[in-house]
Amino acid sequence: MVRSEWIAARKGHDNVTQMHYARQGIITEEMHYVAQRENLPPELIRDEVARGRMIIPANINHPNLEPMAIGIAAKCKVNANIGASPNSSNLEEELAKLRLAVKYGADTVMDLSTGGGDLDAIRTAIINASPVPIGTVPVYQALESVHGSVERLTPDDFLHVIEKHAQQGVDYMTIHAGLLIEYLPLVKNRITGIVSRGGGILAKWMLYHHKQNPLYTHFRDIIEIFKKYDVSFSLGDSLRPGCLHDASDEAQLAELKTLGQLTRKAWEHDVQVMVEGPGHVPMDQIEFNVRKQMEECSEAPFYVLGPLVTDIAPGYDHITSAIGAALAGWYGTAMLCYVTPKEHLGLPNAEDVRNGLIAYKIAAHAADIARHRPGARDRDDELSRARYNFDWNRQFELALDPERAREYHDETLPADIYKTAEFCSMCGPKFCPMQTKVDAEALAELEKFLAKDKDQVSASA
Amino acid sequence: MVRSEWIAARKGHDNVTQMHYARQGIITEEMHYVAQRENLPPELIRDEVARGRMIIPANINHPNLEPMAIGIAAKCKVNANIGASPNSSNLEEELAKLRLAVKYGADTVMDLSTGGGDLDAIRTAIINASPVPIGTVPVYQALESVHGSVERLTPDDFLHVIEKHAQQGVDYMTIHAGLLIEYLPLVKNRITGIVSRGGGILAKWMLYHHKQNPLYTHFRDIIEIFKKYDVSFSLGDSLRPGCLHDASDEAQLAELKTLGQLTRKAWEHDVQVMVEGPGHVPMDQIEFNVRKQMEECSEAPFYVLGPLVTDIAPGYDHITSAIGAALAGWYGTAMLCYVTPKEHLGLPNAEDVRNGLIAYKIAAHAADIARHRPGARDRDDELSRARYNFDWNRQFELALDPERAREYHDETLPADIYKTAEFCSMCGPKFCPMQTKVDAEALAELEKFLAKDKDQVSASA
Repeated sequence: MVRSEWIAARKGHDNVTQMHYARQGIITEEMHYVAQRENLPPELIRDEVARGRMIIPANINHPNLEPMAIGIAAKCKVNANIGASPNSSNLEEELAKLRLAVKYGADTVMDLSTGGGDLDAIRTAIINASPVPIGTVPVYQALESVHGSVERLTPDDFLHVIEKHAQQGVDYMTIHAGLLIEYLPLVKNRITGIVSRGGGILAKWMLYHHKQNPLYTHFRDIIEIFKKYDVSFSLGDSLRPGCLHDASDEAQLAELKTLGQLTRKAWEHDVQVMVEGPGHVPMDQIEFNVRKQMEECSEAPFYVLGPLVTDIAPGYDHITSAIGAALAGWYGTAMLCYVTPKEHLGLPNAEDVRNGLIAYKIAAHAADIARHRPGARDRDDELSRARYNFDWNRQFELALDPERAREYHDETLPADIYKTAEFCSMCGPKFCPMQTKVDAEALAELEKFLAKDKDQVSASA
Repeated sequence: MVRSEWIAARKGHDNVTQMHYARQGIITEEMHYVAQRENLPPELIRDEVARGRMIIPANINHPNLEPMAIGIAAKCKVNANIGASPNSSNLEEELAKLRLAVKYGADTVMDLSTGGGDLDAIRTAIINASPVPIGTVPVYQALESVHGSVERLTPDDFLHVIEKHAQQGVDYMTIHAGLLIEYLPLVKNRITGIVSRGGGILAKWMLYHHKQNPLYTHFRDIIEIFKKYDVSFSLGDSLRPGCLHDASDEAQLAELKTLGQLTRKAWEHDVQVMVEGPGHVPMDQIEFNVRKQMEECSEAPFYVLGPLVTDIAPGYDHITSAIGAALAGWYGTAMLCYVTPKEHLGLPNAEDVRNGLIAYKIAAHAADIARHRPGARDRDDELSRARYNFDWNRQFELALDPERAREYHDETLPADIYKTAEFCSMCGPKFCPMQTKVDAEALAELEKFLAKDKDQVSASA
C-alpha cells in the first residue's frame, strides 16, 4: 500500500496531522506525493498546509490512499457522494458506485449511508477499496445508534461514532458544530428552513433538549480524536440556503462566523480544516459568498455544494449547479461537491453519477483555466489541434468522457473510415467549418497582393 | 394571424422597420405586444428600439409571428438551430424540430439548412408554422445556387438569395459583412483558424478572387432590402474563436470593430441590428468580450454562441457552453444561441435538442435572476415553496421540463401516493432534509428560554 511505511514511522506521535508536521517544517511523504501530482514545489505544499490554506485529508488508517490536496494553490477538486439508504443499496452496489466515481474523476468520495445494511461493514469496505479520501457525516449513524430517537441521543453517542469512523480510516468528517442554538430563530423568514440533513438533526436535538449544540460544546473532544488519526474537519454549514430566496441571509452568515472561530480553534491544535458552503445562490452573490468565507475562516479551503443558480430545473440540477460551481471555483473555492440530475427527485443511478461527475469535472477544469493555473489549458489546446486535424480518435482520447464522445459520433457515422473523415454528421461533408483551412501559401499570396493593391479592395461599406 | 392587420396598415411605406417607427415616436402594435410579454412600459420598448439597444425581429411577411424582443432591457433570450443537411432531413422532420424547439422554450429559431431537399419549400413551411422569429444564414444557399463553386459565386448571387429570404418572411439574417480581406492574415497563429461556416465561405471567396468581401461592399444594397421587409441584421462573427486558445485575439477584435461600423451604418437607415459573438472563451475573458462588444457596437444587442468555457468535454458541450452562456447573459448579452450535446460530434436528434434547450433556458433564467430583472425569481420561490411543502405535482408543473422531473421522480417511486409523500428515494423516508420543519411554536418556546437562560447554553467551544 502506498502509505504503509510512511505511517509506520509516525508510530508513537501523539499528533499525526499533516498540519502538525508542516508546522515543524517537515515535508511529509504525502506532501511530496501531492507536489508531484499538482506540479508544485513541495515547500509550497508544506507552507500552504502549515498556513491552513490547503489540506491533505489522509487518515493514518487509510494506508492505500493516494494523497491529494484541497486548497486554492492546488487544482480545483470534485467530490462525489455515494451511500446506502434504507432498502436501496448494499455493499456490492456501493463498491460499484465508488469505482464509478473514481473512474469519472472524483477526487474525494463521501459515504453518506443512512441505512440499508451494516453501515460499518460498508464503510470499511469502501475505505479499503478507495484510492481517494473518504468523507462521512457521523451524525447520521449517531442517530441510527439510538434508533432515530433525538430524545435519547447524547453527546457521547456523537463522540462514540466519530471515534469509530476515525479508527476505520475516514479521512474527513462533516461536523455541524457551527449551528448554535441562538441561530435557530434566524430561519423564521426562510422559504425552506434548514436543508442540511445533519444540521436538521442537531436543530431538532437543540429544540428538544434546550441545550447548546453538543458538537460545539464538545469540539475540543473531537479535536483530540482527529489529532490521533489525522482526520480533517469539514465544518458543516447546517444553515446553508435551500433555495435562492434564502441565500446569503443572516442565519447563513451567523453560522459562517462561528465556523471561522472553530477553524482557528482546530488550527490551535494543528488539526486540518475545510469549510462547507452553499447550496442555492444566485450568480451575482457567489463571489460575495466565496470572499466572505475566506475572510471569516482565515482562508481555510472552501468546499461548496453546487451552488445551484436557479431552482426551476429539477431533473437538470447537475447543470444549474455546475454553473454555480464553475463560478465558485473561479473565485477560489477549493472543492466542489457534485450534484446529479436526480437531485431533489430520487436516488441517483450509475448514469446519473456519471452525468453529475462530468458536469463537475467541467466546472472544476473551467475554474482552473480561468484562474490561470499552470498548464490548465494544455489539454484543451491538444484536443483543439486534434479537432482541426480531424483526428477523431485523438479527440475521443482527450475528452473527459471518451466513451460518450465516441458513442455520440458513431451514432450517425459508425464506420471506421469516418474516424479520419473531414466532417461529421452535424454539418455534413461540404459544410464543416473545420475544413476552412486558410493555408500558408494562399495567405502569403494574399499578403503580397494586399501590400500592392490595398486601395483597390478597400471600397467602403 | 396575429399581425395581419397591423402589417396591412403599413402598406406603401418605403421603410417598415420597427426602428423606423420607433424613431418617429410611434409605438407599434408589435411594441405593445412585447411590452406586455416583458412586463415593461411600451414607451421603454419604443425608446430602446429607437436607440438600437433592442430589436423586434418581425418581417412583414411573417404575419403569424408573436412578436418578441432581444435587448438588455428585456429578458435574456435563447435561440435554437434546426435545419436540413444533405441526406439527413426532410420537411416533416424540420417542422417536428421546430415544434420541439418551441415546446422547450426557444425564443427564436434559426433554419441552418444546407441541403437535403427543397430549401425554399422547407424555409417557407417553417416560417408559416412558426410563432417565433426565424433566422437564416443566406450565404449557404448562395453557395448551393452555384453548385458549391466559390469561383463562380458573384455578389449578385448573395443579394438574390438575401432578397428571396426576405420575401419569404425571414425575420433576421446572419450577414458576415465584417470579415474584411485584410483580416485574413490575422488567423495565422490560431489553432482552429476560421470556424464560422459562412465566414469560411467568404474567406475562400476572397482568397480566390482577391477582392473585398462582397457583403461588405454591397452592405448598402442589403440595407435597402432589409428596410422593405423589416429584416434585422444579425452581423456574423466570421472570426469567432473555435477554441479557448484563439479567444479574444487580434482577428476577433478587428472584425468586431468593423461590425460596430456596420451597426451604425445600418442604423443610419433605421435598420435593426444585433451582433453575433463567440464561441469558445475562458470564463475570465467573458466579461471583457461582452463589454467590448457594447463599446464597439454602441450597445446593439449581443447574441452569443455559448461560449464554451473548456474544449475537453465533447458530448457535454451543452454544459460547457451553458456555463459561458449564463455568464454572458449576466454581463448583459441579449440572446444565447444554444449548443446541443452533439456539438462537434454529429447531427442532434430530438433528445439532444431538448437537452440543449433546457440547458440554455437555465442559463438565460439564471442571468435574469443575477441581473435582478423584475420578477425573475418568482417562479423559483414558488417552486421552492412547493418543494418545502412536498407538493410534488406542483414542483413538476413549475419545472422547466415537467416531464423529465416527473419521470426521474417516478423512476423509483411511481405510485400516486408518493406525490404527497414527505420524502423521495434520494434520502429515504427518515432523512429528507425538507422534513426539518422548525415550527413557530417550538421557536417561540426556544426564544423564551434563550431570553431567560442565555448564559446556560453559551458554553464555549
